[in-house]
Amino acid sequence: MTQNRFNLQDSEREEDDSSNSVSSSNNSGAAGMRIIVPLQGVVQGRGGLVLGSVIPCALFYFLQLYLKRNRSPSPSPPPSSPSPSSTQLSELSGIPRSLSRSHLSPRGSTGPTYVSNRASSITKSGDSPYYVGLNKVDGDQYDALENPDGVIQLGLAENKLSLDLVRDWFADHLKDSLIIESGSDLSISGIATYQPFDGLMEMKMAMAGFMSQVMQAPSSFNPSQIVLTSGATAAIEILTFCLADPGNAFLVPSPYYPGFDRDIKWRTGVELVPVPCRSTDNFNLSIAALDRAYSQTKKRGIKVRAVLITNPSNPVGNLLNRDTLYSLLDFAREKNIHIISDEIFAGSVHGSEKFVSMAEILDSEGFDRSRVHIIHGLSKDLSLPGFRVGVIYSYNEIVQAAATKLARFSPISAPTQRLLISMLSDEKFIKKYIEINKDRLRKMYAAFVNGLEELDIKCMKSSGGFYCWADMSKLIRSYSEKGELDLWNKLLKEAKINVTPGSSCHCIEPGWFRCCFTTLTENDIPVVMERIRKVSESCKSRH
Amino acid sequence: MTQNRFNLQDSEREEDDSSNSVSSSNNSGAAGMRIIVPLQGVVQGRGGLVLGSVIPCALFYFLQLYLKRNRSPSPSPPPSSPSPSSTQLSELSGIPRSLSRSHLSPRGSTGPTYVSNRASSITKSGDSPYYVGLNKVDGDQYDALENPDGVIQLGLAENKLSLDLVRDWFADHLKDSLIIESGSDLSISGIATYQPFDGLMEMKMAMAGFMSQVMQAPSSFNPSQIVLTSGATAAIEILTFCLADPGNAFLVPSPYYPGFDRDIKWRTGVELVPVPCRSTDNFNLSIAALDRAYSQTKKRGIKVRAVLITNPSNPVGNLLNRDTLYSLLDFAREKNIHIISDEIFAGSVHGSEKFVSMAEILDSEGFDRSRVHIIHGLSKDLSLPGFRVGVIYSYNEIVQAAATKLARFSPISAPTQRLLISMLSDEKFIKKYIEINKDRLRKMYAAFVNGLEELDIKCMKSSGGFYCWADMSKLIRSYSEKGELDLWNKLLKEAKINVTPGSSCHCIEPGWFRCCFTTLTENDIPVVMERIRKVSESCKSRH
Repeated sequence: MTQNRFNLQDSEREEDDSSNSVSSSNNSGAAGMRIIVPLQGVVQGRGGLVLGSVIPCALFYFLQLYLKRNRSPSPSPPPSSPSPSSTQLSELSGIPRSLSRSHLSPRGSTGPTYVSNRASSITKSGDSPYYVGLNKVDGDQYDALENPDGVIQLGLAENKLSLDLVRDWFADHLKDSLIIESGSDLSISGIATYQPFDGLMEMKMAMAGFMSQVMQAPSSFNPSQIVLTSGATAAIEILTFCLADPGNAFLVPSPYYPGFDRDIKWRTGVELVPVPCRSTDNFNLSIAALDRAYSQTKKRGIKVRAVLITNPSNPVGNLLNRDTLYSLLDFAREKNIHIISDEIFAGSVHGSEKFVSMAEILDSEGFDRSRVHIIHGLSKDLSLPGFRVGVIYSYNEIVQAAATKLARFSPISAPTQRLLISMLSDEKFIKKYIEINKDRLRKMYAAFVNGLEELDIKCMKSSGGFYCWADMSKLIRSYSEKGELDLWNKLLKEAKINVTPGSSCHCIEPGWFRCCFTTLTENDIPVVMERIRKVSESCKSRH
Repeated sequence: MTQNRFNLQDSEREEDDSSNSVSSSNNSGAAGMRIIVPLQGVVQGRGGLVLGSVIPCALFYFLQLYLKRNRSPSPSPPPSSPSPSSTQLSELSGIPRSLSRSHLSPRGSTGPTYVSNRASSITKSGDSPYYVGLNKVDGDQYDALENPDGVIQLGLAENKLSLDLVRDWFADHLKDSLIIESGSDLSISGIATYQPFDGLMEMKMAMAGFMSQVMQAPSSFNPSQIVLTSGATAAIEILTFCLADPGNAFLVPSPYYPGFDRDIKWRTGVELVPVPCRSTDNFNLSIAALDRAYSQTKKRGIKVRAVLITNPSNPVGNLLNRDTLYSLLDFAREKNIHIISDEIFAGSVHGSEKFVSMAEILDSEGFDRSRVHIIHGLSKDLSLPGFRVGVIYSYNEIVQAAATKLARFSPISAPTQRLLISMLSDEKFIKKYIEINKDRLRKMYAAFVNGLEELDIKCMKSSGGFYCWADMSKLIRSYSEKGELDLWNKLLKEAKINVTPGSSCHCIEPGWFRCCFTTLTENDIPVVMERIRKVSESCKSRH
């Protein structure tokens, strides 16, 4: 690490005025002291027992420093951070330090301007098949009438099955939800002026009510534990900032939602460690596997701060049962780590199994709640991703306080909240919505899974979410990630169907694909199946 | 740094099963290797010249490691990161590693759960007078009729002078802006479903038009250079993530907006270096001071990545003239750094001076644009902070690309955008709004500054923003930060007036205060002045 520091200093361009030369030799002295002083501190406690070894050690450092200072040319910067080349630097050092405009000519660039390493890596990322597939649909989306040869989107977890219910509610209530009257200052000031960044209390109350209704939780959610954010993506990132420092890790049962690799890792510096689940266990989480992943991560010198679960799971769609939730809480307690329970699909359960929220477990038993945090939102369970509403529901007061402050970076606009307060407070509508939506989900799931079954493609049994988890391993040429991606590519290019390959979800068994069915109509299903059938037959004929 | 790593490993709790003991000794070996290998790498280049010094150095490290491993009790963790105490740890180590629920009893906490160092420091921050003052107003805000003894808010840069114009527009146009019709799927799907996180193209076009109108820029803004975010706070943070890595710094002419210390530093790890401006220069930026700050920062081994300016400046309210903008561009080019021009108050200019956007300078000359980034939004120039709309307008393609991706953490909801597309596209309304608003700002500024002048408090000449920068140094008992804060406290507690002390803005001269006048009505001004007069007299009588 110390070494790194010197590299940085060395690659900085030298200037040719004498005051700077003096300062840079002062600098090396100071840097040397930064090494020696802590070493002495350690030694002192032992009464100078090992003081003798400090001297060669220090000598070594200074020699190294001397050699690096006199080395030329200077080491090239890492490829991800463009910085001026050495020729450009020598040109630059010839420019007098005058600030008068006329002295500086021509006024062109001195070379590529530095952008941060984060920006460089972020712009370069995004080539995973999950995102390639999503982008592929842009501009060529299937439409039965307008674009029958377009790409069918089965890669995006968006629910359009019940959009008509939402639409009709807005058509009837929009005017009442956003009352702005000429001459009345009260109404406009609740919308136009500064509001709390973490959400209006009325909105938190409405959201708590919605969560209780949608999760059919026996007990209620406490509005004061809610921090609202502009989408669940922001919610999970803010929570990560609160629970872990750069270099720490979260354990994540895999296959997991591909977006986590962006949402959690990009800015926080936190690592995700997949905990493999297997088809022989119906992709259910095994605590033994979790324990193994924990130990292995610890052996790598990395601190595990939390287990991140999705319940209902994404991409598989299975539910975590009570026993697993209890075991998870015990595990978290034993390791003194957190649990993040992403329950964004809690209300989108279509099977016979009952969803159990982590909140329900905590209500019923004397667990240590301060390590549990629930993620929810309106993108899935109310089909309103365009409204960008996410929820952090934390039982930890420090996390609540920090997340409240960090919500300034991801606030929901006041007009959006006003609209939603009306809708969420309409319990009758919400009840109707949940019932009808579940019924439609159930039917669509059955139709889609049956359609695949007729093509001899089996899906893992699932009870929640907008997708099924399909086993197409029989169709892949080689039992490998490459084989899987070849099939994915064939589906996308030939059949014009975008699905999410298991490898994008860190699934260790090749040949699994997530297929979202909730953007389809029932009439689309035969079209999808016919397209898959053709690819399937061409694959089988090759075998 | 290496030292630190061992401390972290040491403070981790030991477990008493044998497999873990093995792993932890493996661990120390691995840690040792992490030190030796890079050292060898450095030495190899010099042909083993100094290899002899590696051996005592390695010996020293291992000895140190051994001593630390055998030391008891283990060193206490830093106070900012609560972790289980050693007694709790020894209790824990007695628990068998079984995961069966029944074995674990009682199920209470094992001690405070770890939250991140960032979360700890964020929850502890916010005690600056700027935030204390803002919070003080909550629940006891002055109202001429309802709460005449309440606190008068002069600490928040919010403009209520022209809220009636916005209100009336909404009253007339709300229904047309958010058309949602029963039976029409088109309208709802543009609102409820997933939309681009960085903003709808229609909204970017409307925003570009608004920026041209409000800045009276001779040339237009390009919508494809715009990234929209939920507020300018998010815009500036995302831009910081793109331009700098942890440990880098921005130079910021001071006094500067107190919020930058949160918005920029909290999550990015980027440091802000104030560049002092002085009353003798009318608090105008001096390039010489900028150059000094640059050199000093460099001497500290810290890389400067950008200069962050506010134009019109916040808190002083002066405008940067063309020559200063040219010099800044030259400076940035010479140092190969960026310029962030926060122009959030660009349309809120009330003086006779004309505002010049950095965009205008770039349009007119052959500068290197790739190092320039402008921040704007609707919170100030359209009095809509509740709508949370921020703009990153960058000339750098890598920054555009990275910011577009990072906008996923701070998106604006689709209904909010739909509402605003209608409003911003109504050029006639916007023109009328700008004119009337500027006129009201001008009158209010004059009335407020005159009021202070009558109390013998002079303001720095300013031309933009919602505030004046008042010199109350005559009223402070000691010419120091303490003296300033005593007066601030007196104003808040006795006069029940919340202003922002200069020290919160990193002003190096004590006795300056930012007073926002745009939440007042004209009738409030005599009340404010009377309250200040009383404090002023009590201060003077003590002298």
